[in-house]
Amino acid sequence: MKLTDYIASYLAQLDIKHVFVLQGGAALHLIDSIEKHPSLSAIAMQHEQSCAMAADSYAKTHHVLGVTIATSGPGATNLLTGIASSYFDSVATLHITGNVASFRQSHKLGVRQYGFQETDIVSMAKPITKYAIQLKRPNDIITVLPEAIKAALSGRPGPVLIDIPDDFQREILDIKKIPFEAFNQSTVNHKVIQENIFNNFIVSLKQAKKPLFILGAGCHNSAERLISLATKLKIPFLSTWPLKGIANHDDELNLGNFGTHSLRGNNIVLQNCDFIISIGCRLDSKATAKLDTFAREAKIAMVDIDHNEIEKFAQLGKVINYQFPVSVQVFLDAFSLHCEDLIEIFKNNDVWLNYITDVTQEFNYIPEYNYGGVNPYLAVELFSGAFCDDQNICVDTGTCLPLTLVYGKEKKGQQYISSYNNTPMGYALPASIGVALAKEKEVFCIVGDGGLQMNIQELSTLNHLKLPVIIIVFNNSGHCMIKQTQDDWLDSNYFSADCNNGLPHINFSEVAKAYGIDSEKVENNEQLKLLVERLHLRMDQEGPKLIELVINPNFRYEPIIKYGNPLENMSPELAYIKQKKAMLIPSLKENL
Amino acid sequence: MKLTDYIASYLAQLDIKHVFVLQGGAALHLIDSIEKHPSLSAIAMQHEQSCAMAADSYAKTHHVLGVTIATSGPGATNLLTGIASSYFDSVATLHITGNVASFRQSHKLGVRQYGFQETDIVSMAKPITKYAIQLKRPNDIITVLPEAIKAALSGRPGPVLIDIPDDFQREILDIKKIPFEAFNQSTVNHKVIQENIFNNFIVSLKQAKKPLFILGAGCHNSAERLISLATKLKIPFLSTWPLKGIANHDDELNLGNFGTHSLRGNNIVLQNCDFIISIGCRLDSKATAKLDTFAREAKIAMVDIDHNEIEKFAQLGKVINYQFPVSVQVFLDAFSLHCEDLIEIFKNNDVWLNYITDVTQEFNYIPEYNYGGVNPYLAVELFSGAFCDDQNICVDTGTCLPLTLVYGKEKKGQQYISSYNNTPMGYALPASIGVALAKEKEVFCIVGDGGLQMNIQELSTLNHLKLPVIIIVFNNSGHCMIKQTQDDWLDSNYFSADCNNGLPHINFSEVAKAYGIDSEKVENNEQLKLLVERLHLRMDQEGPKLIELVINPNFRYEPIIKYGNPLENMSPELAYIKQKKAMLIPSLKENL
Repeated sequence: MKLTDYIASYLAQLDIKHVFVLQGGAALHLIDSIEKHPSLSAIAMQHEQSCAMAADSYAKTHHVLGVTIATSGPGATNLLTGIASSYFDSVATLHITGNVASFRQSHKLGVRQYGFQETDIVSMAKPITKYAIQLKRPNDIITVLPEAIKAALSGRPGPVLIDIPDDFQREILDIKKIPFEAFNQSTVNHKVIQENIFNNFIVSLKQAKKPLFILGAGCHNSAERLISLATKLKIPFLSTWPLKGIANHDDELNLGNFGTHSLRGNNIVLQNCDFIISIGCRLDSKATAKLDTFAREAKIAMVDIDHNEIEKFAQLGKVINYQFPVSVQVFLDAFSLHCEDLIEIFKNNDVWLNYITDVTQEFNYIPEYNYGGVNPYLAVELFSGAFCDDQNICVDTGTCLPLTLVYGKEKKGQQYISSYNNTPMGYALPASIGVALAKEKEVFCIVGDGGLQMNIQELSTLNHLKLPVIIIVFNNSGHCMIKQTQDDWLDSNYFSADCNNGLPHINFSEVAKAYGIDSEKVENNEQLKLLVERLHLRMDQEGPKLIELVINPNFRYEPIIKYGNPLENMSPELAYIKQKKAMLIPSLKENL
Repeated sequence: MKLTDYIASYLAQLDIKHVFVLQGGAALHLIDSIEKHPSLSAIAMQHEQSCAMAADSYAKTHHVLGVTIATSGPGATNLLTGIASSYFDSVATLHITGNVASFRQSHKLGVRQYGFQETDIVSMAKPITKYAIQLKRPNDIITVLPEAIKAALSGRPGPVLIDIPDDFQREILDIKKIPFEAFNQSTVNHKVIQENIFNNFIVSLKQAKKPLFILGAGCHNSAERLISLATKLKIPFLSTWPLKGIANHDDELNLGNFGTHSLRGNNIVLQNCDFIISIGCRLDSKATAKLDTFAREAKIAMVDIDHNEIEKFAQLGKVINYQFPVSVQVFLDAFSLHCEDLIEIFKNNDVWLNYITDVTQEFNYIPEYNYGGVNPYLAVELFSGAFCDDQNICVDTGTCLPLTLVYGKEKKGQQYISSYNNTPMGYALPASIGVALAKEKEVFCIVGDGGLQMNIQELSTLNHLKLPVIIIVFNNSGHCMIKQTQDDWLDSNYFSADCNNGLPHINFSEVAKAYGIDSEKVENNEQLKLLVERLHLRMDQEGPKLIELVINPNFRYEPIIKYGNPLENMSPELAYIKQKKAMLIPSLKENL
């Protein structure tokens, strides 16, 4: 069996249906084998960056490996930003790069390049992959492929890369049958929970009056179980952005998200709790704001399969009282045994729940909007109202990200997909293609003007495949988030950040039309409302559409936490009386 | 002085005028300082990939450092393909990336990421840079910046990268005055030529009856001197693509280029010579074709500043008779001393020159074209005829590259800019922006449909800056070069390589219009001729324009050398009699 046919057959066994590719001299045989396999399709993108991003979103929504194929040199290096996205979001993706023939490798020659378009992609990908290797002998693929896939899926997932010299790709392997190996989290040996720590944790939790769950992306596969547990225990939960849609936004215990770009009420609640059970969440700097002020009177239990994510806090001077470097599943198995006891204890924590209701009702409001034209808060409210029950929404970075994630009203079963930790501009459009293929359903793509430009060539892919993707462009003619920082630090000199300072004006609805995509431009709230009404009547099968929202360039997103502040001190700041009243623990600023 | 202001002042001293940037949270201060400096402009591109490519072409044409600024994470990784282009083409570029604050680096924490958008760009860039470093202390910039620039410019030039944590960027350095340091090749210690080898070389050269120069990109700065020398000696010269334009295409001694994609006559001449003086050329696999058959009856002298490029041949089993790991300048200084002797010897080598005339006249023809619609060979002939005397032409990869470089009729003073060794699709458009800024002149951008899509977002940059760039798109609705390989190896299954097999049709003239750029579509040779006539009347100041040539998807470029063949055996193959007659040395194929 030809080596590349072997790879195709192996991938097909894993329930992968689509592989994201861009042609090139060293990728020909790989793509040929994918396309010839009866249950695989090669999806031709217009930039390898898009291949990697589509594979990332495909894995996030299809819950199986995302796969790309790229050629050597620029093909391979073009993948790197998307591979980094998978690495930092812990997403299992497999990247197969062709390289120059084995006899044209420069390794031993000491020159920059010998074969045409040769590049040492393995060294370049190492810092952002769990496993990256160049095939040394053709037959090695038989061990390397399962090893790579196991690395991608096991423990904390992540991307892997296999680089295959062109001459090896055509080799005939001495193998008749594809060995079937099922990989999933459950086949991997989990570390055992430490009993003494766990017992102490339970004892301590029983003393808590103001407990909270914090759920992170690691909970994705255990969300049902966790929510059922939280409901039984009457413990409210905050979650990070990737989990938006694990519960209805109006479920009493679902507080939504928190952090430097979130709702003020949620942050105040978090800061005033006395016990955090953080599960599958690395508690990064956007989550904690100023670390030494984070949940400063709370005990913290932390569950993370990557022990380094827990241990880092010792070096950072933050105490994590109960440390569980195990999988969410292992933790929940242990935790469930204490459920009955805990239900009894927390059944009367109405004081805490009432406080939460009061604080969130008072402080989780939609900001006033006085810039004229389309109100972006209203846009998010209306669009999220129009999303169906199991809607998939791909969101780019920039202002549209907090707007959608903070103010969108989620329904249980929806998934909001973004590149949350690498946050490249340009993710949402190729990601929408990945999701539309993975789910065979209509996808919303929410993106800013800067982000859409980055991979705008994929409008042609979208049109070619006639995928039902509705692109909502928040076009504020510049980089709003950057301008907010320039307001703070650089005297509002908007260099290279708006259309008066080096950026072009772009008429996205015209560009979409030129690519064959139906589009319209929305310039005020009335047009917006009419459009959303029409969207409700739209059918899944109608193919792509682009809606350009013309946003005032002076619009500034709020509230946010400025550098150095604790979570409860969002800008614009609250009056002293209000803030004081909301806090159960001592406020840090006496002179607020 | 603020650290970023220091960088700006330092760069301004080097005669740099433009810095290619894309905004981001960790690049704000860097860009602010560039833009505030009276003699620098920050050019805002729409993708960091384009920044790096524009910087590469800027350095190639301005003969000074190309500089980019990008933010951390995706901003930095988006540079990598362009940085690789500079590395493999030996171009001095400086890439300054912002990174998360020094106290938010994950280095010692063992986690994938700690600060927002943190990525270890230094490790990722190491394999494709001469120098890559993260600043450890703010004041280190005073030594690091000159070190980096010196590394970029000295010896064999190349890209360098400095990664600067966000908090350091705002630091005030304890320095009042910017130390001025001039860097150029001549300030660097050159290795001395080995006298005994040189003397043997001269003795041997004097025996030669059929000598040739091969000039590579390393000759760029010594081109005048070399051509004057060749003219005196009556030794003809072949050159690699980057040197196109160092002499007029009809100068008797200027044979033009050679290699796997070149003219048959030139390759036959090269194979039949008896002495090659290769200068500033690494003789890569596209230049030599099957190495053991390359110039197999010739003695070879090789001058390359990178000794590894010469020494590799020992490992590859090819004898390089006279090895000069020195700069072109050092070699020429020594060589010039023997000039009078050599003139006397070669003054009567008319047999060789006549042979060359005969062979090139017979075999360097433009292929017949029978596909209908626009004839791409004719297009190149007409456009190159319309180029002005000092025209700069940026060329992308794919079929348009050999078409333009092999069949374009160059004039002395023109420069053909491409990413010759990394050859990423998408280089030509951002590169045109770099060149238009560097030269303040009209630039032609020659690109295929696949390549233009890759960085098509830069049409908006072009329109915004109103740069005089004329884009000629060879739109053959697919990847012609790939299809030629698929014809050879994969039964003409054009998977992911044409519009019947997964690629979209794109109406580039409409896309250009949507971006505000004047465009037109050319569908046949008559329209083409009229258009070129009009181009002659065009003014430099008219801003950008896009011309889409509709090329038949069945068009196949020729002649080329298929894998495993010697340089003289180009496909389509010549009849036996013709080939035999042209060869002075024994032909390899007895049964041709």
